[in-house]
Amino acid sequence: MSDPAVARALRDRETLGDPNALAALSRRYREVRRFTERLCEPLAVEDYVIQTMPDASPTRWHLAHVTWFFETLVLRKAYPDYRPLNQQFHYLFNSYYNSLGEQWPRSRRGLLSRPSVKEVYEYRAYVDRQVLALMEQFSRQSAQVAPIVELGLHHEQQHQELILTDIKHVLAQNPLFPVYRPRPGEESAEAEALTWHGFEEGLREVGHSGPGFAYDNEMPRHRVFLESFELASRPVTNGEYLAFMADGGYQRPELWLSDAWMVVPREDWRAPLYWHEVGGRWHSFTLAGLREVDPAEPVTHVSYYEADAYARWAGARLPTEAEWEDAARGLPLEGNFVESGRYHPAAGPAGEGMQQMYGDVWEWTASPYTPYPGYVQEPGALGEYNGKFMCDQLVLRGGSCATSMSHMRPTYRNFFPAAARWQFSGIRLARGIR
Amino acid sequence: MSDPAVARALRDRETLGDPNALAALSRRYREVRRFTERLCEPLAVEDYVIQTMPDASPTRWHLAHVTWFFETLVLRKAYPDYRPLNQQFHYLFNSYYNSLGEQWPRSRRGLLSRPSVKEVYEYRAYVDRQVLALMEQFSRQSAQVAPIVELGLHHEQQHQELILTDIKHVLAQNPLFPVYRPRPGEESAEAEALTWHGFEEGLREVGHSGPGFAYDNEMPRHRVFLESFELASRPVTNGEYLAFMADGGYQRPELWLSDAWMVVPREDWRAPLYWHEVGGRWHSFTLAGLREVDPAEPVTHVSYYEADAYARWAGARLPTEAEWEDAARGLPLEGNFVESGRYHPAAGPAGEGMQQMYGDVWEWTASPYTPYPGYVQEPGALGEYNGKFMCDQLVLRGGSCATSMSHMRPTYRNFFPAAARWQFSGIRLARGIR
Amino acid sequence: MSDPAVARALRDRETLGDPNALAALSRRYREVRRFTERLCEPLAVEDYVIQTMPDASPTRWHLAHVTWFFETLVLRKAYPDYRPLNQQFHYLFNSYYNSLGEQWPRSRRGLLSRPSVKEVYEYRAYVDRQVLALMEQFSRQSAQVAPIVELGLHHEQQHQELILTDIKHVLAQNPLFPVYRPRPGEESAEAEALTWHGFEEGLREVGHSGPGFAYDNEMPRHRVFLESFELASRPVTNGEYLAFMADGGYQRPELWLSDAWMVVPREDWRAPLYWHEVGGRWHSFTLAGLREVDPAEPVTHVSYYEADAYARWAGARLPTEAEWEDAARGLPLEGNFVESGRYHPAAGPAGEGMQQMYGDVWEWTASPYTPYPGYVQEPGALGEYNGKFMCDQLVLRGGSCATSMSHMRPTYRNFFPAAARWQFSGIRLARGIR
Amino acid sequence: MSDPAVARALRDRETLGDPNALAALSRRYREVRRFTERLCEPLAVEDYVIQTMPDASPTRWHLAHVTWFFETLVLRKAYPDYRPLNQQFHYLFNSYYNSLGEQWPRSRRGLLSRPSVKEVYEYRAYVDRQVLALMEQFSRQSAQVAPIVELGLHHEQQHQELILTDIKHVLAQNPLFPVYRPRPGEESAEAEALTWHGFEEGLREVGHSGPGFAYDNEMPRHRVFLESFELASRPVTNGEYLAFMADGGYQRPELWLSDAWMVVPREDWRAPLYWHEVGGRWHSFTLAGLREVDPAEPVTHVSYYEADAYARWAGARLPTEAEWEDAARGLPLEGNFVESGRYHPAAGPAGEGMQQMYGDVWEWTASPYTPYPGYVQEPGALGEYNGKFMCDQLVLRGGSCATSMSHMRPTYRNFFPAAARWQFSGIRLARGIR
Repeated sequence: MSDPAVARALRDRETLGDPNALAALSRRYREVRRFTERLCEPLAVEDYVIQTMPDASPTRWHLAHVTWFFETLVLRKAYPDYRPLNQQFHYLFNSYYNSLGEQWPRSRRGLLSRPSVKEVYEYRAYVDRQVLALMEQFSRQSAQVAPIVELGLHHEQQHQELILTDIKHVLAQNPLFPVYRPRPGEESAEAEALTWHGFEEGLREVGHSGPGFAYDNEMPRHRVFLESFELASRPVTNGEYLAFMADGGYQRPELWLSDAWMVVPREDWRAPLYWHEVGGRWHSFTLAGLREVDPAEPVTHVSYYEADAYARWAGARLPTEAEWEDAARGLPLEGNFVESGRYHPAAGPAGEGMQQMYGDVWEWTASPYTPYPGYVQEPGALGEYNGKFMCDQLVLRGGSCATSMSHMRPTYRNFFPAAARWQFSGIRLARGIR
Repeated sequence: MSDPAVARALRDRETLGDPNALAALSRRYREVRRFTERLCEPLAVEDYVIQTMPDASPTRWHLAHVTWFFETLVLRKAYPDYRPLNQQFHYLFNSYYNSLGEQWPRSRRGLLSRPSVKEVYEYRAYVDRQVLALMEQFSRQSAQVAPIVELGLHHEQQHQELILTDIKHVLAQNPLFPVYRPRPGEESAEAEALTWHGFEEGLREVGHSGPGFAYDNEMPRHRVFLESFELASRPVTNGEYLAFMADGGYQRPELWLSDAWMVVPREDWRAPLYWHEVGGRWHSFTLAGLREVDPAEPVTHVSYYEADAYARWAGARLPTEAEWEDAARGLPLEGNFVESGRYHPAAGPAGEGMQQMYGDVWEWTASPYTPYPGYVQEPGALGEYNGKFMCDQLVLRGGSCATSMSHMRPTYRNFFPAAARWQFSGIRLARGIR
Repeated sequence: MSDPAVARALRDRETLGDPNALAALSRRYREVRRFTERLCEPLAVEDYVIQTMPDASPTRWHLAHVTWFFETLVLRKAYPDYRPLNQQFHYLFNSYYNSLGEQWPRSRRGLLSRPSVKEVYEYRAYVDRQVLALMEQFSRQSAQVAPIVELGLHHEQQHQELILTDIKHVLAQNPLFPVYRPRPGEESAEAEALTWHGFEEGLREVGHSGPGFAYDNEMPRHRVFLESFELASRPVTNGEYLAFMADGGYQRPELWLSDAWMVVPREDWRAPLYWHEVGGRWHSFTLAGLREVDPAEPVTHVSYYEADAYARWAGARLPTEAEWEDAARGLPLEGNFVESGRYHPAAGPAGEGMQQMYGDVWEWTASPYTPYPGYVQEPGALGEYNGKFMCDQLVLRGGSCATSMSHMRPTYRNFFPAAARWQFSGIRLARGIR
Repeated sequence: MSDPAVARALRDRETLGDPNALAALSRRYREVRRFTERLCEPLAVEDYVIQTMPDASPTRWHLAHVTWFFETLVLRKAYPDYRPLNQQFHYLFNSYYNSLGEQWPRSRRGLLSRPSVKEVYEYRAYVDRQVLALMEQFSRQSAQVAPIVELGLHHEQQHQELILTDIKHVLAQNPLFPVYRPRPGEESAEAEALTWHGFEEGLREVGHSGPGFAYDNEMPRHRVFLESFELASRPVTNGEYLAFMADGGYQRPELWLSDAWMVVPREDWRAPLYWHEVGGRWHSFTLAGLREVDPAEPVTHVSYYEADAYARWAGARLPTEAEWEDAARGLPLEGNFVESGRYHPAAGPAGEGMQQMYGDVWEWTASPYTPYPGYVQEPGALGEYNGKFMCDQLVLRGGSCATSMSHMRPTYRNFFPAAARWQFSGIRLARGIR
């Protein structure tokens, strides 16, 4: 958890006596909280309630859970006599923090019709008032909880992304193919040619250090030896992926990991998630509705299994996360993030060098999600944030069209199981230099 | 299906030329349809959407499906050029009629957030307008579809009952225990003593014949030989059932059918559905919220397995449906039906003779649901209404506190699988005479 | 359980003082036990161990369980100080008698490699010696247990049939298609034309009474009113069933019960169990290996679902068990039973009247397995023999090519769930008379 | 696959013209094949057939599969006109090589009673004769297949270990607790005190290079940067693990990975696999039968989840595989391997330095099983040997009491999923130096 890092950073800036920093945090609190609600504006009340698979939560649950986070880790800590709006919310909206008590089961989040959507918004307002009042006191207490508020905002930004990917999953199940938001003005483009960029072997440093927010799993910064490697200039496009499909990609066991080859026939995978063959042409369901697959856009909604199989078919491999981070060093942190309002990957811009490292699609790496050498898990609830998931997941890097730009860093480590497809996940190729 | 019976009945009354009968049918159409919507008044939009088990459907789905029934079997038949509000509703709201095409899977009815509740009410209005217009023409066409309209109203009344039992299942999952409707003024009572009433052996007639609506599965009327038997004067009460529980009823395999004894430990059954032990006392979740179990009320939400085990424990058995129908002959058709607004079984009135044969709880019989001798299944969709379910289900008789009185008859056969508990099902004992 | 019936019967014959009856029982004991072992002669040790589905038990288990039955219900009762060969066998080989203690789970019978086959035969010999010694004492004690010995022999004969059907299931899973026993000299025949035989309406008696062994579920004899009906002269043949298949029988939902239509696509049923299409022609795996389907033989290894669908397709229905028993009255009890050594149904003989009512195939009836009016379940273990299975099963009548002739009676009620196919089950048609 | 490495090695030694090397390989072939059969001597025929979980195969299957490996990859390659003993064995005994065709499903290996055990031994002899004849020709052809024979022997040694762990799983299901082989003379010992050994930070080389057999997944040798670390002098003992259990280890979610905490309650884990509490004391089922847990022996049959939880409880962590390999550098390759005939871990010897790095128990590392930088998967079947399993598994190091000593190397990488417990897997602790 970022607690110590943020605490240190804030202390460095003499936060305890710095009303400006706290005021800035209050401002950011308002912005992030407001943005969550803006993302929900297109939804009907009915949309908030549905859970279409255990991994994806109802919007209403997300709205309440991020609020629960502030209530539990900020307000209950700051005020020993804190009076919750509803005692049972502590149980209903705890996600997975065993140290904070029992949880309503994840797979049953869609069985609750109450509290109503309106009541959840009231819950948000109830907690907001008190968090903001606390921040605006500029007291020793507000300085102490400031790092947790900072963490809570990053946490909420993660859930903003999940709100989008989860509601996409809900709408996609519906044969009526409801539109979340119409696509802004449509441009057509051609994909740039894929080129390869070389990186020298050597000892590198990866991970976060210094000021600025980062999660605990990005630390400590440490040394890694890298063999020389090459990285593709841009993510794999739909057009390239269609060639893989046309070459029998989904029918050839030699391209797939053993685990993958159990999933492919069982789930009858023949294309990325949300793709439908209509009238002999491939379409994909997007947050703007069903549209024909654009060959210039980065392919997305592929699992690690598919990313790995594609790379093998292409005579390449996926990069490790250290390679990815090495290659991202010094690149400007900009791209097609959630702020674009597109909510879908876009064909990349022309240009030299590495393109689209940030935004558009989370890029699967070949690296299992493990602790960095010297990683120390915090005690208590904050230690449950990241550390206990370090098993059987793969790291993804770079953020997607559903990620907030202010939530991204070069050292940011996202992680999902190998079969997950409902995130905006894509593929960037790597290869050794022989 | 009732088609021929009703057709015959209406023809007998010279319906083809009888505007009065059609006007009465229109009136009844308005009433039944309005009553459905009245039952939904206490619901929040969120409540309409949830599906808590494959057997129970979202309210929204019920509202649309009963409308689909009129659209498909009345309007599409009457108007070859009928223009549906939405072509996909034909697929989305077909329950199980294979002869009418594919169906959206039953277990996935809760994955749809659209059409919205508002759109479903618009769908109802759209269809209502046209059905009523058709009925009010007094034409040859309206006379022809009249029996189907009649059937559709009985069908809707069945779904009214399911709306109540299914929403109860939804609300009961929620640890907030939401109240559907507060209970009207509470009376406390003591249960009448249970007495036994004897019936002579002999050849009897059971099943429906003559005028008046009945489902196809109630016909033809036929002869059955009954040995002499005795029937309990009233259903088993909560107090009696608590004695069974206190006597280790749920822990003694010798009381249970073999199939039952697989379910009891696997599902950890220790009491009827919706019962909770709170502070050492048994409570049950009702549509008026959680309340302490009233020993004078009939026990309800028990499966056939539990009814059978209870009867064995009590040294008795369940009646066959022929015995039940024989005993019900001549009794007034009145009781605690949905019209009482209680939505829960009530302690019975004092009185001689058979009590509470109608209303309060559906009474499990020992009779598997099979066709009557000479039963003929209709061709086409109407033949799918009842006939194809005649396997591995048990017959229940008499209606419950969630049944409309106008939907009940002495010959009415309800049916559910042996493990079903979410209906208002209860127990009446029988025994042979030695 | 037959206990009282047999006890009565034996008492009638003054068994207590009748050494002849006990000597006859000893003789029968030797014969039945020997026949069990004869059925196992073709098996390799490896064949005894395998369990291919929860419903089918390893041969070794059958051999031990029937022995356990005598040990537990005869020897332990007769000798308070009985010393078992192995204490744990009491647990390992109890099938489902809760009143006799815990049981090794049915679905895990194939996980045990010990006791070895040799040890199981030693167990049989150990028990046989003591049962025979007891019988040959002609004491009051031997007279008392005689009815249980009688029951145990019928029980063993049931398991003889299961040994054959279960080992068939084992061998059929194996792509090497091992042969159990080669078929004796092959005759080719044509099926007789199917004719219909009428039976008058009226009050009939069904069920067992009087002397002679019968299970408790065949009693008491009681009155049933039958409408007039017709019964087919012989079972449905493979040739007729092929016509049903060719007419799209397995693809037409309107022919199937609702439950059935969930199973057919899920299990991908396209033909009876054990049928394989090889080179464009249907073959079936028999205990004599894989052979081409003979159109003249009765179809077998069909579920109730298939029997019911076939009957609907043929414009007929299945008989009730009372109809079947009425029609069987007075017919000679002879047919293609296990004694023929054919272990497969055969084309029927020419002849007038009802043919093949006994032997060849168990005939599915339309009757759910329920207690006869006045049925009384015995207390204790014997009460568990039949009574607790009276739910969600269908009655079959007449015995099959795997049944011992001496195990059959007109009143015999076999029962299996609607989806079961691994028994030698077939179809006889019935219809009403209009 | 080892193919190129071995080929290179043999070529270096001028194998093509070196009858001595081929003669040595023949000798080793005889020895390894004979040892497999020696391991089966204690088994009854019934033991060969059983499959108790999908992960564990019947002994008979192992015996046939390793033979299939030689038949398919040596004989079929060497002799274009090779005549197999049975064509269907190619399908029945292929484990997971998609490039060699379809496979009989892994989870159904226990459903086959044929070919019989005797036939499988005949199959072994049939293939042995021809492999040995080929090797003894000293031809160009024998030189070419020699590396595959070498690989096949290592493959068979892997299956020797699985024969032991799988038959242990079979016998352990049986409440009779059958003994595989009595334990040789029992010594009692006390565990040595655990000490910590430090290793300096720096760039190290890990992986195999040079002559000598190694699997493809051990190559190429490559550089890794290690932070300084400490390693425990010996594996965790039963006594230490009992302290973890006594401290509520299995009840405290904060000690467990998130995935682990789903498994622990679901599977009701309270102790290592095969442990039973009898009369208030912990026993474990061993290949020598049930015996009381010896606190001095290394704990075994723990999953990665348990190893990780134990390490967290102990304030330590698991080593990475690079750390393990670094620490093992230069240690003598000796220990309690299968040759000891003990088939169970033993209390370690007294001594300075790292103890029991080899033998006794496979040591879980913190390293997910991934390809080494520059790893190249071979084309065809040999490429399926290791590469396709590089997902969601953890590396284990050092071999166990069921491993052949001649099968072990410092660079050897074993791998299993995090929940696997039926291997002889144990725990060695590591920690950073602060």
